[in-house]
Amino acid sequence: MPKIIVEVMPKADLLDPAGKAVANALQRKGNAEITNVRIGKRIELHYEVAPTEEQIEAAKQIAADFLSNGVIEDVVAVTVEN
Amino acid sequence: MPKIIVEVMPKADLLDPAGKAVANALQRKGNAEITNVRIGKRIELHYEVAPTEEQIEAAKQIAADFLSNGVIEDVVAVTVEN
Repeated sequence: MPKIIVEVMPKADLLDPAGKAVANALQRKGNAEITNVRIGKRIELHYEVAPTEEQIEAAKQIAADFLSNGVIEDVVAVTVEN
Repeated sequence: MPKIIVEVMPKADLLDPAGKAVANALQRKGNAEITNVRIGKRIELHYEVAPTEEQIEAAKQIAADFLSNGVIEDVVAVTVEN
């Protein structure tokens, strides 16, 4: 099934308390090499047939306007997977 | 900065109410071509230096044991980004 994958992460200069908690837990478990953890979203849009160029553009717009909050998040990737 | 990206999605046979709500909203907005939406997690593990093979293996183990819940989620990808 064709998909468009949208990846959204909290902005770099923003605190990510959940990520920080995971980083601390991993360090306590002995993974000192992991300096930080950030937790974002991976959103799959499913299509019946492979999306057209126009639908891919629409998906990028949806990613920016609707699936992410531009104040606190960045869309880091929009990938088509047919 | 080197990263390992862990991608986690709800299992295919599991309901994803948030994803369903987004799919309904997108369809109402006129994107009838989007048949379904699934929302998962994208977790970045940050490293000071490029992770060794052993650290990559450890990260895969962390992804399976710690960053995902095997009952309801699948780790769909573990990618190194140097």
